[in-house]
Amino acid sequence: MAISVGIVGYGNLGRSAGRLVAAAPDMELVGIFSRRSGLDTAAPQFRVTEIAEHVGAVDVLLLCMGSATDIPEQAPELARLFCTVDTYDNHRDIPRHRAAMDEAARAGGTVSIVSTGWDPGLFSLNRTLSSGILPGAPQHTFWGPGLSQGHSDALRRIEGVESAVQYTIPHPEAVGAAQRGEAGGLSGTQAHLRQCWVVADQADHERIEREIRAMPDYFVGYQVEVHFIGAETFGRDHSGMPHGGRVITAGTLGGPAGESQHTVEFSLQLGRNPDFTAAVQVAYARAAARLAAGGASGAFTVLEVAPYLLSPTPLDELIARDV
Amino acid sequence: MAISVGIVGYGNLGRSAGRLVAAAPDMELVGIFSRRSGLDTAAPQFRVTEIAEHVGAVDVLLLCMGSATDIPEQAPELARLFCTVDTYDNHRDIPRHRAAMDEAARAGGTVSIVSTGWDPGLFSLNRTLSSGILPGAPQHTFWGPGLSQGHSDALRRIEGVESAVQYTIPHPEAVGAAQRGEAGGLSGTQAHLRQCWVVADQADHERIEREIRAMPDYFVGYQVEVHFIGAETFGRDHSGMPHGGRVITAGTLGGPAGESQHTVEFSLQLGRNPDFTAAVQVAYARAAARLAAGGASGAFTVLEVAPYLLSPTPLDELIARDV
Repeated sequence: MAISVGIVGYGNLGRSAGRLVAAAPDMELVGIFSRRSGLDTAAPQFRVTEIAEHVGAVDVLLLCMGSATDIPEQAPELARLFCTVDTYDNHRDIPRHRAAMDEAARAGGTVSIVSTGWDPGLFSLNRTLSSGILPGAPQHTFWGPGLSQGHSDALRRIEGVESAVQYTIPHPEAVGAAQRGEAGGLSGTQAHLRQCWVVADQADHERIEREIRAMPDYFVGYQVEVHFIGAETFGRDHSGMPHGGRVITAGTLGGPAGESQHTVEFSLQLGRNPDFTAAVQVAYARAAARLAAGGASGAFTVLEVAPYLLSPTPLDELIARDV
Repeated sequence: MAISVGIVGYGNLGRSAGRLVAAAPDMELVGIFSRRSGLDTAAPQFRVTEIAEHVGAVDVLLLCMGSATDIPEQAPELARLFCTVDTYDNHRDIPRHRAAMDEAARAGGTVSIVSTGWDPGLFSLNRTLSSGILPGAPQHTFWGPGLSQGHSDALRRIEGVESAVQYTIPHPEAVGAAQRGEAGGLSGTQAHLRQCWVVADQADHERIEREIRAMPDYFVGYQVEVHFIGAETFGRDHSGMPHGGRVITAGTLGGPAGESQHTVEFSLQLGRNPDFTAAVQVAYARAAARLAAGGASGAFTVLEVAPYLLSPTPLDELIARDV
C-alpha cells in the first residue's frame, strides 16, 4: 500500500518534495499545507490551520518549513498529530529540537525523523560511521563548491546591491591535505574561499566591496573574491542552486610493521540543492512510515535509522543486489 | 563495562583484528582461537575445538576465517553459541549465508552480523543508501587501485612463477564518466585494468605472459599489463596490501525547469586492506554487543544496523557532535 504523504510549506524545498513524492511509485501525495492559498500546484492544497482534520489520512508529513522560527515554533505540535520528517539545520540546536520532537511524538504515538537532508543528514551519518571505524582520526567537512543562501542574503542586505550570490568554494590544497591526513587543526575559515557575484551601480562598487569584506562572521577572516557583473550576465549564469561538499576522515591503524594510513571520503555534487535535500527527506519519509508501522514512537536522528529503511526495494532484494 | 571479544582465525585479518581490539578502550581481548598452537601473539591463545568452554566469557566472536570453506562450514555452529561478526565476501552466496546464520542465531538467542568489511560492507551500505535517495540512478562500483588477493593467487599457480602480485586499477575515464552520470552500461571488465608484477626465470617470460592473458574469468576480456621484475625489487616495492575503491551514484531529479543532476560518491583509500577490513569488523562487534544487550537475536547485514551503534561515543554526544 502506498505511503500517504503531506507537505507543510511551499518554498523551494516544499516544491521539490512535492514533485518527488508525486513521482515516487510507493507514495501518494495527499496535498500541500500552507498559510497561503492559491499556490501554483496541481496537487490538492489545504490551509495549514485545518491540518488536524487530516489525521488518519496522512502517514507522514514532510515539514518543509524554515529552521529560523517555523520549525521550533510549529514542529512539536505537528509531531503530536502526525509522523514527521524535517530538515532542521541549526546544528547547535539539534539536541534540543530532537528532545522536543521526542516528547511530542511519544505523547502522540508517532515517529519524527529530525534533521535529514545532507548536512545535517547524510554528512552526519558519514561523520559517525567513519569515526566509529577510525576512532580518533582527524575528520574534516568541506562545503561547496556551492551557493550559500545565508551569505547571499547577507550580500543583498547591503545598500545599493541589486542582485547577489555567494559561492562557498573549498581550497583544493586544504582538501588534498585532509585526504592525506595532513590537515591537522585546519579551520573552516582557512579551508574555504567565499566568492561573491554582485549587480550594483558602478559608483557604489568600491563601498559595497569594502562593506562585504568588513562583515563579521560572514566574510571577515575568509579569503574573499568580489566580482561585479551586469544584470543580464547574472540572470544567465547565477540563477541555479548548485551545492555539494565532502566529509573526509583520514587516520592510521596499527599494522604489523608500524601504522597504515586510511582515508574515507563521502562527497556530493548537487545540481540543485533543494531537489537533493528533498530527495533525502522523501527517503526518510519511507523510513518513518516503516518505523511507525513496526510500532515505534519518538524522535530519531539519521544516526538511529537502519539504511535499508530508506529504500523502496524490499530487504531481501537489497541483500541479494547491494550486499 | 568493556565488551569481551574473541577472535577465531589468525591470518592477516585475525592479526589486524587482534591489534585493534587490544587497542580499543571499550573492548577487552579474551584471546585468539585457532586450529594451530604456538601463535606469535602476546594475547591468550586457545584451541578452537575447545571454544564451547568460553561461552559466557565472550560477548562477541570475530570470525576471521576464510570465505571459501571455513565460514560456510563452521560459522553457523559458532553463531549458535556466541554473538558473531564475519566478513564473508562471496557476494552471490550472502542471502544463503545470512539465512543460515539467522537460523543458528535465533536458536541460540545470539546476534550475528554478516558480511561486514568494505565490499561487502561499507560499499553495500552506500549502494543501498544512494539508490534509496536517487531511485533508478546508474550506480557503479570501482575497485582499486589495489592488490587483488584472488588474482595474485591465480598468477602464483602458473608454472615457473616465483612471486607475483596483481593490482586492479580503475580506468580514470570510466570513473569520470560515472561521476558525470555518463557511464551507462559500463561493465567491470571495461572499467578496470589488471596490472601484474611477476618474478620468474627469463626463459619462461613469454609463456607465462601468454598463460596469464589466456586465463578465463581472471584476465580474458580485461586490459592486462604484465611486468617482469627481479626478486629484490619485488620484495621492496610489492609487499604492501593497499586497496580501495569507490561507489558512484549519479542521477537526475525532476526540477522546476527540467532535471537537475546529482552525484553521490563514497570512496576509500586503504594503506593496508586487512587493517581496514578488521577496523570495520571491530566497529560492528560493538553493534552486535549492543543489539544483543537490547534483546535482539538473529542475523543482520550492515543494511539493518543503525549507524550510531558502530561508535564508541554515546548517542547523545554523537548527536551534539556529528549531526
